[in-house]
Amino acid sequence: MDTPSFRAMGHRMVDLIADYWDDVESMPVLSKVAPGDILAALPASAPRCGEFDPAHPDAFWNALAADIDRVIMPGLTHWHHPRFFAYFSANISGPSVLADMLCAGLGVQGMLWATSPACTELEQRMLDWLGEAIGLPEQFLFRAGAGGGGVIAGTASESTLVSMLAARARAHAASPAAELVAYASDQAHSSVVKAAMIAGIASSASDTMHVRRIAVDAQCRLRVDELERAMQADLAAGRLPFFIAATVGTTGVTAVDPVRDVCLAGARLPVRPWVHVDAAHSGAACVCPEMRWMLDGVDLVDSFCFNPHKWLLVNFDCGCLWVADRRPLLDALSITPEYLRNAASDSGSVVDYRDWQVPLGRRFRSLKLWFVMRAYGLDGLRAYVREHLRLAELLESLIRSDDRFEVVSPRTVNLVVFRLRGGGDVANRAMMDAVNASGRAYLTHTTLPATHPVAPGAVVLRAAVSGALTREPHVRDLWETLRSHATLRA
Amino acid sequence: MDTPSFRAMGHRMVDLIADYWDDVESMPVLSKVAPGDILAALPASAPRCGEFDPAHPDAFWNALAADIDRVIMPGLTHWHHPRFFAYFSANISGPSVLADMLCAGLGVQGMLWATSPACTELEQRMLDWLGEAIGLPEQFLFRAGAGGGGVIAGTASESTLVSMLAARARAHAASPAAELVAYASDQAHSSVVKAAMIAGIASSASDTMHVRRIAVDAQCRLRVDELERAMQADLAAGRLPFFIAATVGTTGVTAVDPVRDVCLAGARLPVRPWVHVDAAHSGAACVCPEMRWMLDGVDLVDSFCFNPHKWLLVNFDCGCLWVADRRPLLDALSITPEYLRNAASDSGSVVDYRDWQVPLGRRFRSLKLWFVMRAYGLDGLRAYVREHLRLAELLESLIRSDDRFEVVSPRTVNLVVFRLRGGGDVANRAMMDAVNASGRAYLTHTTLPATHPVAPGAVVLRAAVSGALTREPHVRDLWETLRSHATLRA
Repeated sequence: MDTPSFRAMGHRMVDLIADYWDDVESMPVLSKVAPGDILAALPASAPRCGEFDPAHPDAFWNALAADIDRVIMPGLTHWHHPRFFAYFSANISGPSVLADMLCAGLGVQGMLWATSPACTELEQRMLDWLGEAIGLPEQFLFRAGAGGGGVIAGTASESTLVSMLAARARAHAASPAAELVAYASDQAHSSVVKAAMIAGIASSASDTMHVRRIAVDAQCRLRVDELERAMQADLAAGRLPFFIAATVGTTGVTAVDPVRDVCLAGARLPVRPWVHVDAAHSGAACVCPEMRWMLDGVDLVDSFCFNPHKWLLVNFDCGCLWVADRRPLLDALSITPEYLRNAASDSGSVVDYRDWQVPLGRRFRSLKLWFVMRAYGLDGLRAYVREHLRLAELLESLIRSDDRFEVVSPRTVNLVVFRLRGGGDVANRAMMDAVNASGRAYLTHTTLPATHPVAPGAVVLRAAVSGALTREPHVRDLWETLRSHATLRA
Repeated sequence: MDTPSFRAMGHRMVDLIADYWDDVESMPVLSKVAPGDILAALPASAPRCGEFDPAHPDAFWNALAADIDRVIMPGLTHWHHPRFFAYFSANISGPSVLADMLCAGLGVQGMLWATSPACTELEQRMLDWLGEAIGLPEQFLFRAGAGGGGVIAGTASESTLVSMLAARARAHAASPAAELVAYASDQAHSSVVKAAMIAGIASSASDTMHVRRIAVDAQCRLRVDELERAMQADLAAGRLPFFIAATVGTTGVTAVDPVRDVCLAGARLPVRPWVHVDAAHSGAACVCPEMRWMLDGVDLVDSFCFNPHKWLLVNFDCGCLWVADRRPLLDALSITPEYLRNAASDSGSVVDYRDWQVPLGRRFRSLKLWFVMRAYGLDGLRAYVREHLRLAELLESLIRSDDRFEVVSPRTVNLVVFRLRGGGDVANRAMMDAVNASGRAYLTHTTLPATHPVAPGAVVLRAAVSGALTREPHVRDLWETLRSHATLRA
């Protein structure tokens, strides 16, 4: 495609995107297509002749735009919809999309410093900016020069995996034959178990001998007494506790594990296990100083991750991982074959990010952090987060005002966890399914732990208030939708 | 950022990208900055106040554009430069950038079918289109309904890792306690060793007991007799051969391993090892029927990957992995916690791609394959590849015409491997460094295996002719640059 055609079509794509953002509120949040509908709308094979003809660029654009409308749009669940309250958000923003465009247009690879120095050094600086912005201690920043630093790791699953690999490298350097055990609360993200499966530490998802799922307290926080008991039992049985994942904002109810006590428990063992903090969603709130209570103890941890692509206006993927000491990470992931050697890398004077991750190639993702932090500034990001916190508080108070409902878990950040009091799991699932099928809002559920004081083992609903377009009327609309469905069922 | 401002800035970003493509040829290919230069040009901390003001959107654009020019551009090694001949290419194209824009603008997540059905089903269909386009047997396509299918896996490193994990799951299902051994030629990509380290199968990069690096023949192809010998020795010692990586187009010299014979050797063992084909770069050439000799035997393999983001006009990241049987992959990677369950997934009627990969979240990357295959058509992609093959042949003939140079490895696709005859490794490295430092072209080197018949253990230069903007004058220019540096040194 020639550049004049790209220019013309690019302008139209920008307008298509802007139109989508302007219109998305009018669409059903959750796609209504049935399995196979999209497949059936697409030809079985690739076209033999290209559809783009530089003499008639409009024809290709028109064909594409029509198919986006006909095939793609009905098949989308709109994550950018202002009434999307499911899972955790995957924020997008204008500055971030501009950065993604530039990343695509430059098309450089950042696997080594030399393959595009700006890609590596902007990333180093942005991880310092962001680490400082959320209040991480200095040892996690490159500027401290103490061996720590950060990397864009894609997703929190990848951050957890590479942290576990670094932990294994450190543990095996001291005890090569040790049988390793990892620990996380029974509310921790599935990626902890998945990482252990990938690493060969757990033989399957149900290998609770090698990934101990620790019971939680009444607020769904990891119980440190249970953690200590489990670690001591493993030590007594000749196994080595090597990795603890503490969660700051669990997926189910945004519970915040007691990071400091977890670290202190680890430090009392003969060999200190690696402590990794998974703050994938909730870490974003720490741009606000008043939310940094969640980070108490983070000065003692080995690694910390959170995803600006969830709740900080940066497009997916942009998960950030910081380590206090990069050496175990490099021990776990560095392989330097001949065809990747060059003078700058050999001298050790630069960072080669391929050794901080599973893949070799990498995009210029730090542009997104640069554009977003510059566009909004820290004050802008704080105002953004605080407004969602206010709206979550509002939703909570609306739910509390209607005694057919109950809030079942204390709100720590922007997630409200609630249920219908009557009718049990069946009624709550039915209400959720009805709300989602209406297209008016999208919610997901979780199941509380069996030890939960209010609703043990119950199916409860989650509303995460973190959409970039979500404003007070959307939260009030969600509440009206919930109320009307509760009335229908009464 | 409000949509009118995004619209205005988006148009300007499209123009910035198009201007970059028009101008890139005038820039030095390899960045000339020194370590730390970019870091020093960036403030130490994020700004407190946002720079974007909807009342003056131009001011933010002007500041950004000036910094892109001042800070970023000098720090780029230009992968889209028409005289970039290093590594393998990372192609970009107009249709692919348009698709990446749409992907960013929609911002949907494809972790589950339900989280955006179009994201999953378009990917399924595109992997069928592309698999058929390169001549993969029917069992790798979803449409065959036989349990096979494809996935966008990011990079070939990730494809190799998840294939190895699936292989382990299959091997351990039969022999839970078996000590596993993987095999690849000593010319295979470092990602095989890295995958084994991640999986905990190899204890380090030098653990040759668990990743056997098999010697190659005079053309750098895996020697099947050596593979059989190694597998038999491991079996005799009580270890289980579980995974063989065959390379179609090695990184060093694009050697093509004898896939059929590798598979037959595996099939003669008591337990058949998983055979994975890594065609990361060269697989793209198989859009041309005359290049499909490289795939002989692929009907017998378990998994196959190639990266359209290298040489097929699709932006990074878009690495494609196909498996003949998805079940071992799901056994290795599937974990289904409560908060990810939904009716469509539970019924088994849909594909949930989170179970085909390491991360949970995923972007709508199949849009890139859709736009590119539609824009160019199979005929257009074939013409694109054939022109690079012609230019590589031309470069090879130019090198052969000057007896100060020699072509040291038979050309299989678009990579020419050569050296200066006199002066040995020192002279060849010096010439490469001089060419690269000139900014006129960018080449990388490799070291031939110690068993190589022409130049055992020698440092040799590689020129990969696969840039989207690379035309005959650029190849002739590379040759003149090389010649003039050889003359300077004579």
